[in-house]
Amino acid sequence: MRGTLRPFSRVEIEIINTGTELMLGRILNTHQQWLCRRFADLGYVVTRQVAVADTPADIERAVRDALTRSDLVLTTGGLGPTSDDLTREVLARMLGKPLHEDAGVLAEIERVFQRLQRPMPASTRVQALVPEGAIVLPNPNGTAPGLALELSPNPFRAKGGNSWLIMLPGPPRELHPMFASAVEPLLHREFPLDHPFSAQTLRTTGVGESALEDALQGAIPGFRAEGVEIGYCARIGQVDVRLSASGADAAGRVGAAVVAVRAILGPDIFGTGDEELEAVVIRKLIEKGKSLAVAESCTGGGIGNSLSNVPGASAAFLGGFITYSNASKERLLGVKSKTLSKHGAVSAEVAQEMAEGSRLALGSDYAIAVTGIAGPGGGSTEKPVGTVYFALADAGTTLVWHRVNAWDRSTFKTVTTAQVLNALRVRLDLGK
Amino acid sequence: MRGTLRPFSRVEIEIINTGTELMLGRILNTHQQWLCRRFADLGYVVTRQVAVADTPADIERAVRDALTRSDLVLTTGGLGPTSDDLTREVLARMLGKPLHEDAGVLAEIERVFQRLQRPMPASTRVQALVPEGAIVLPNPNGTAPGLALELSPNPFRAKGGNSWLIMLPGPPRELHPMFASAVEPLLHREFPLDHPFSAQTLRTTGVGESALEDALQGAIPGFRAEGVEIGYCARIGQVDVRLSASGADAAGRVGAAVVAVRAILGPDIFGTGDEELEAVVIRKLIEKGKSLAVAESCTGGGIGNSLSNVPGASAAFLGGFITYSNASKERLLGVKSKTLSKHGAVSAEVAQEMAEGSRLALGSDYAIAVTGIAGPGGGSTEKPVGTVYFALADAGTTLVWHRVNAWDRSTFKTVTTAQVLNALRVRLDLGK
Repeated sequence: MRGTLRPFSRVEIEIINTGTELMLGRILNTHQQWLCRRFADLGYVVTRQVAVADTPADIERAVRDALTRSDLVLTTGGLGPTSDDLTREVLARMLGKPLHEDAGVLAEIERVFQRLQRPMPASTRVQALVPEGAIVLPNPNGTAPGLALELSPNPFRAKGGNSWLIMLPGPPRELHPMFASAVEPLLHREFPLDHPFSAQTLRTTGVGESALEDALQGAIPGFRAEGVEIGYCARIGQVDVRLSASGADAAGRVGAAVVAVRAILGPDIFGTGDEELEAVVIRKLIEKGKSLAVAESCTGGGIGNSLSNVPGASAAFLGGFITYSNASKERLLGVKSKTLSKHGAVSAEVAQEMAEGSRLALGSDYAIAVTGIAGPGGGSTEKPVGTVYFALADAGTTLVWHRVNAWDRSTFKTVTTAQVLNALRVRLDLGK
Repeated sequence: MRGTLRPFSRVEIEIINTGTELMLGRILNTHQQWLCRRFADLGYVVTRQVAVADTPADIERAVRDALTRSDLVLTTGGLGPTSDDLTREVLARMLGKPLHEDAGVLAEIERVFQRLQRPMPASTRVQALVPEGAIVLPNPNGTAPGLALELSPNPFRAKGGNSWLIMLPGPPRELHPMFASAVEPLLHREFPLDHPFSAQTLRTTGVGESALEDALQGAIPGFRAEGVEIGYCARIGQVDVRLSASGADAAGRVGAAVVAVRAILGPDIFGTGDEELEAVVIRKLIEKGKSLAVAESCTGGGIGNSLSNVPGASAAFLGGFITYSNASKERLLGVKSKTLSKHGAVSAEVAQEMAEGSRLALGSDYAIAVTGIAGPGGGSTEKPVGTVYFALADAGTTLVWHRVNAWDRSTFKTVTTAQVLNALRVRLDLGK
């Protein structure tokens, strides 16, 4: 995949993730993918990513090494209030920039604790320290602000020139918005691209990565002739297709490729950019003025959890039922005991009665219901682990699907939730 | 978590993950956590992890840098048959070790294709090339063997000495078994631990990282005197405390420190090792032969989703209700319309009636209910975004809690879920 680097900017960017818990394998480093992807979408490519423990020696060595090479060095973590949050102090000392308490930052931190109605621990005050000459990157989602320093010139690089050192907080819910609000504008200002760059992402569900690649194979020569690069990003139950180009009319060429991919993949595409499947479903329900109820057996609340992650979901999502036991299926949803005994709890018939029962109980326009075997126990030869039936009911009809999602329990729940939501999404797209 | 590195072996280990798709953020680097954790469990700690694109210049630069510092450098990826698999060739050239076709490896590759009943593509033959002096690490799950080279002495390190360079294949299903079968024995043989090593993790919820550190401050000098290191790992709503030591009676000294931490933190500790809070709750319910129902408003299925992630949860978790609207709270849970109009949906009174109503509807021993304002909309001066009431009902009493979890929507749900489950966990610990 070497060639895909060419359309990108030549800015040397290095990411340094600090944290002993990373080096002990206690947590997964999701920052790397998130940051690399954001840079790539903006037309930049990260040259190197490094993770080290949060000891002073490791942090200093890694940042110093990076500054011998890079135009932009971005660290994550180590800005918090505890004794192992040392990034600010270590790097200020390394660069010979004294730390001063910033009154504005301190006031912001105090406001956070007022809002939480909690006393402010004394240790928190360290987060108001700012190295001389640093730009403060506000953190509306936490207490530690980010910091950006221009090294002018960069004393660690043989060829000199200016470099930037940006320190971002570790928690994703603080880092992500700060990247958008503070790092992106700095990037555009300090490292403008030589050529226009454009990228678009189409999100699909229900098709495997190989099948998707096969389907698009015929279009690749045309894209190549137009200088449009195609890339795939597979996650559980979903594959993103990313189209990008640089140079004259990059946006137009990418736009034409998007039209071509849409023509080939059609309804397998559920959305664009970063929009999640559950957000598309909620948006479409609200647009059509329709309401939804759910009845979950094997997903145990996973579908409701997913839908309720969408801000404003309650305008369309009325609620639902988690009905593990046969008794609760009968009692709460009106599933007939004869249906349960004749077909078993994991059956098309029970899925149908669950959907219809929950729709009536909540008085919603649509209801979705799912029953299956998440595993690891509970499977049989006839109905192996991973067997799932799901149903979609409206006033007129109830549709039922059967799938075998033979994965581990957690993957089973994620894949099943995507299938159920996608069935509803397709139904909503068909109008009515 | 500085101190925790000391008890580990002093072997300098560096991991280099190669792949342009990593640098474009197309895939998540799960190798890092997997390898770091395996090393840590064996008493070693990875000093640095690096990801670079799979271009010859990037691979060579990263491995050369690593060899200036490290005793053991482990690369992943770039051993396959395609044109961007360059690790073997690049590193053999860098080290001045000519590549020779290994008859044994070639025979193995041929056997794989015979078994698959497919012709062997000519490009595959490159995987039989072995640098002079390298040990071949058999790959029963693929065609590319791993390679291990002792650099004796290491020409890139100022202090000289011997180093090992190990190249592993990228696919996890090839890398994981090869690590166990080939890397672990090499590690024990070439880098034996000087001293016995022991580590234990205690998991807490409901206490912030700063407060936890403050609480344990007084015990640190004693731990230090005993050579026991303490480290923290904070996630949303939870903080882990890890105690480790090496040398004579390491396990005994860690065990004594665990007793001391338990005495200080008491019921804030919900579990040990890797056990999740929801798994502890399910385990305790099953042990006591008790059943549980849930009624969720603002968490929208998050609590049910969390509980149902636990294999075998259905033995204790009967199910529940997602009741966003006032109408559904009345209809499904029997919340009184007078209670709703007098106190509002987000109130202690409604939380109590939701818990009692869901307990009756499902006939469970316990029921938990939660109502609150997840945001971003819906807040008021009196009840700001983040306000939450949750209740725990059994046959005799209903307890209600009030919290302000003023975070983003997703964090609000995670934190609230942890608080609710923890309230139940503490209740179960109190017996009855």
